[in-house]
Amino acid sequence: MILLTKESLPKVIVPRKAKSHKGSYGRVVCIGGIRQYGGAIIMCAQACVKSGAGLVTVVTDVATIPALHSRLPEAMALSFQDQEALQNVLATADVIVIGPGLGVEKEAFQLLKLVLQQQTKDQWLVIDGSAITLLADHPVDFLFPEHLVLTPHQKEWERFSGLALKEQTIRANWHAQKKLGITLVLKSEQTHIYTNHEQYQNTFGNPAMATGGMGDTLAGIIGGFLGQFGHTDLQAEAAICAAVTIHSFIADELAKDAYVVLPTEIANHLPQTMRKFCPFAR
Amino acid sequence: MILLTKESLPKVIVPRKAKSHKGSYGRVVCIGGIRQYGGAIIMCAQACVKSGAGLVTVVTDVATIPALHSRLPEAMALSFQDQEALQNVLATADVIVIGPGLGVEKEAFQLLKLVLQQQTKDQWLVIDGSAITLLADHPVDFLFPEHLVLTPHQKEWERFSGLALKEQTIRANWHAQKKLGITLVLKSEQTHIYTNHEQYQNTFGNPAMATGGMGDTLAGIIGGFLGQFGHTDLQAEAAICAAVTIHSFIADELAKDAYVVLPTEIANHLPQTMRKFCPFAR
Amino acid sequence: MILLTKESLPKVIVPRKAKSHKGSYGRVVCIGGIRQYGGAIIMCAQACVKSGAGLVTVVTDVATIPALHSRLPEAMALSFQDQEALQNVLATADVIVIGPGLGVEKEAFQLLKLVLQQQTKDQWLVIDGSAITLLADHPVDFLFPEHLVLTPHQKEWERFSGLALKEQTIRANWHAQKKLGITLVLKSEQTHIYTNHEQYQNTFGNPAMATGGMGDTLAGIIGGFLGQFGHTDLQAEAAICAAVTIHSFIADELAKDAYVVLPTEIANHLPQTMRKFCPFAR
Amino acid sequence: MILLTKESLPKVIVPRKAKSHKGSYGRVVCIGGIRQYGGAIIMCAQACVKSGAGLVTVVTDVATIPALHSRLPEAMALSFQDQEALQNVLATADVIVIGPGLGVEKEAFQLLKLVLQQQTKDQWLVIDGSAITLLADHPVDFLFPEHLVLTPHQKEWERFSGLALKEQTIRANWHAQKKLGITLVLKSEQTHIYTNHEQYQNTFGNPAMATGGMGDTLAGIIGGFLGQFGHTDLQAEAAICAAVTIHSFIADELAKDAYVVLPTEIANHLPQTMRKFCPFAR
Repeated sequence: MILLTKESLPKVIVPRKAKSHKGSYGRVVCIGGIRQYGGAIIMCAQACVKSGAGLVTVVTDVATIPALHSRLPEAMALSFQDQEALQNVLATADVIVIGPGLGVEKEAFQLLKLVLQQQTKDQWLVIDGSAITLLADHPVDFLFPEHLVLTPHQKEWERFSGLALKEQTIRANWHAQKKLGITLVLKSEQTHIYTNHEQYQNTFGNPAMATGGMGDTLAGIIGGFLGQFGHTDLQAEAAICAAVTIHSFIADELAKDAYVVLPTEIANHLPQTMRKFCPFAR
Repeated sequence: MILLTKESLPKVIVPRKAKSHKGSYGRVVCIGGIRQYGGAIIMCAQACVKSGAGLVTVVTDVATIPALHSRLPEAMALSFQDQEALQNVLATADVIVIGPGLGVEKEAFQLLKLVLQQQTKDQWLVIDGSAITLLADHPVDFLFPEHLVLTPHQKEWERFSGLALKEQTIRANWHAQKKLGITLVLKSEQTHIYTNHEQYQNTFGNPAMATGGMGDTLAGIIGGFLGQFGHTDLQAEAAICAAVTIHSFIADELAKDAYVVLPTEIANHLPQTMRKFCPFAR
Repeated sequence: MILLTKESLPKVIVPRKAKSHKGSYGRVVCIGGIRQYGGAIIMCAQACVKSGAGLVTVVTDVATIPALHSRLPEAMALSFQDQEALQNVLATADVIVIGPGLGVEKEAFQLLKLVLQQQTKDQWLVIDGSAITLLADHPVDFLFPEHLVLTPHQKEWERFSGLALKEQTIRANWHAQKKLGITLVLKSEQTHIYTNHEQYQNTFGNPAMATGGMGDTLAGIIGGFLGQFGHTDLQAEAAICAAVTIHSFIADELAKDAYVVLPTEIANHLPQTMRKFCPFAR
Repeated sequence: MILLTKESLPKVIVPRKAKSHKGSYGRVVCIGGIRQYGGAIIMCAQACVKSGAGLVTVVTDVATIPALHSRLPEAMALSFQDQEALQNVLATADVIVIGPGLGVEKEAFQLLKLVLQQQTKDQWLVIDGSAITLLADHPVDFLFPEHLVLTPHQKEWERFSGLALKEQTIRANWHAQKKLGITLVLKSEQTHIYTNHEQYQNTFGNPAMATGGMGDTLAGIIGGFLGQFGHTDLQAEAAICAAVTIHSFIADELAKDAYVVLPTEIANHLPQTMRKFCPFAR
């Protein structure tokens, strides 16, 4: 198992090219946030924007949009009902993050199924939160599992994989991942990442992170990093690892001065922390 | 009467265990905030989240949710009308804070009665603000008074206990508390706490705190501290005392540089102040 | 004409009494903010809360409440339609600020008339913005002019008093004020205050303040200062002068580093600045 | 081609006159922000207010107003449906910025046509974002092209001018600009400005700016600078150049410490940065 240290970050967070524009850094779509969990998709989108994604569109409950625009005018927003605009947005997306605060209602599953069925070869999907629960109950075939990231915590992974918590050994997890062919980010107090090539272990993180919204924020960073740094499959793998690393690294820095680290504060520290790890920067 | 000094804080605010997750730090439900008083439940929830509660759900007027999510995406939200989801949330709660901005309408009383009737043996209730006024007018039996905190200011206590302001001596208050069997946090310029075992006196606090929302914020901290630190009844008692102490301690620190201390600023200083009082911290 | 210097501030901004509560610092009601001008009443209320008013209630368009609670959960809120609650709030108010963003529609005038007709002997009214324009067009008798502050800028004063800009000499203004018996805060690049006893001239202020919302913020500070410091008529006069002074004093401080000074930034600096001018403070 | 350096800024950002009021610094109307793109007009208005415009009114989707007032109470707001108020606001505007998040629906075009048809001789129009796309598809005659700024990025310019990206040479662009008689701000990694007198080249800017909302923010600054500094046509030309310069200059400063520079952060730094470049300031 490869240990994820901060030395790996500069290899991913490369200087931006002088000749580039917002389209160069990924069109990311974040889907979730029914009214009860509206905050989840807001935190996801905030992390995605602050991680440097070029263009972020949120698909959410119409009631969530005012709070989203109030906190994050940088994000565009569609309601779940805007079917036509949704089709356009999905078709042109480089990365789709689905699940934060999506809920487990029938409509949520319909939307998840739509996203899975329309995945294109070059499109990355990040499946998080409620979406994992939905898939545990209603398995769906993945069209391009090699471009799909699943980010369960251990309980969600139990439901999805059928592996009880005690059975979640590295060997068993890797076996399950291999069968699926996806990238598995298995969140715990020591997150492991299983890819089609390798296994990785996060070396950062602390219990001040144990608060609601932490996973939504990680999903947003993964989306943002895939949009910017995931040009080849190997680069995408490194980008996912870097997202996990920087999320916990910032939390460790903040926990030096705070008993609890709020997810939105991690998001706010992304631009400065990424800058520190960017090599040869002006 | 035991004086509450800052020496007691490190005994409560213990380091978090490495192996823990958000569920380890309490599911807290905050109920209140009709449209007129929407800010009250927002301040309560903000204090609760920033005090480190693992998962915070707000039950409130549907009109209050956009402002809540705009300020505090970390909180989940139900409207008063979401009866089914409400039942689920109440059943799984470790702590319920009811009252900030709840109002005194009939619907408010129905909700309060429901919460009191469904209290489970292991669940803590914090009854604050309008909920105290409601109980003064419509007495309800408490199922588990040993797990119930009442947080009146002196006027509310007068209405609830029948003790006129002048009659509110330590002896009379303790007598009233003993009959009820609850924990009484009697707020004044020198807050007293009466429990089934002991009496405590706050040694912090200042008149810069005399502004709307201060009590809502305290209720949120009590909820958050019970959720994290109230594993045994004695630990819960210490947690309530620590919540009162840190609330006033932060206000005293802020009042060195401010003529008026806003409740939301106290909440914002919780993570850093708790960190300072946490012993053996990394 | 007495020059308003910062030496006058410590006489007004006295230390708070140890034995006091939020009711000791004034119940202030801020009325205004139709949808188009919702920001005006938000800025007014923000200044009022941050100046230390004990309890602030905003009466506004129902559409303005989410933004208000998002920025300022410390304020309570009623919609213009909440007639019953409005009556209660008006009856118990120590100070009523009416006008910021109120508009000049018929409903606005009805509300203004109601407030003027129900003014009680001990209640201060601050008439600002659109409310002045309404009174210029529809004169109403003042029940207690000695407890009424009018805060026009020069154009509004022209409309209200009939004095053309060129005719607005000190002598003419004082003559007009004397006939009305009110306190006149005549805003310009050098604000003058005319009371039943004296004339005052602001010595602070700068053109970086020439931006929308400055007057709404001043009205809120006047309301907050009257609620806290206006116990006698002479103290009220000093409080009004202090509000004008500190508003411009903070703006001058901020303008050292900013080309334009936003009204909300002045409000945010009130607690710290008031603390600096408070004598014998702990 | 004249290089835009920071030396040009103090010539534009002159000290404000002591005798002045908010009306002296421009009435700017910002039009855009259908629900999906509500954030765009919020960012535009935020930049406009923070650049020092005297009075800013936003015309937008009714659903966008709560988020606008929550972030920026300094701005006034009309919904697209407030036809009567809209007529008043347009008639008294010094500068109209139309396009950020306006969308390309029929109603958007109707509004754009209205604005173009009612332009008065002394009124400046800034046409940005979706409005440029609309004009590319439905050409409309300009009444006063000498008071019109078009701010396309290269793709939008391609659609509008018919010049493919490769054909967009300085000569060809200037030729197209001359035919139109407008001021062309052609955005790219090295923005060029073509006026009826001259060509300018931005010397600041960096790829950390490649994120959604950057153009909306620039449009707001141009609007604010025209409102304050555009008294003569030559001054207006210098003001447009200064807006482009300061927008990129701030971004360069921020990029020293941040991997991605968010548009709202640029807006927040306007008052301080403008102050630094203001000569002879107190």
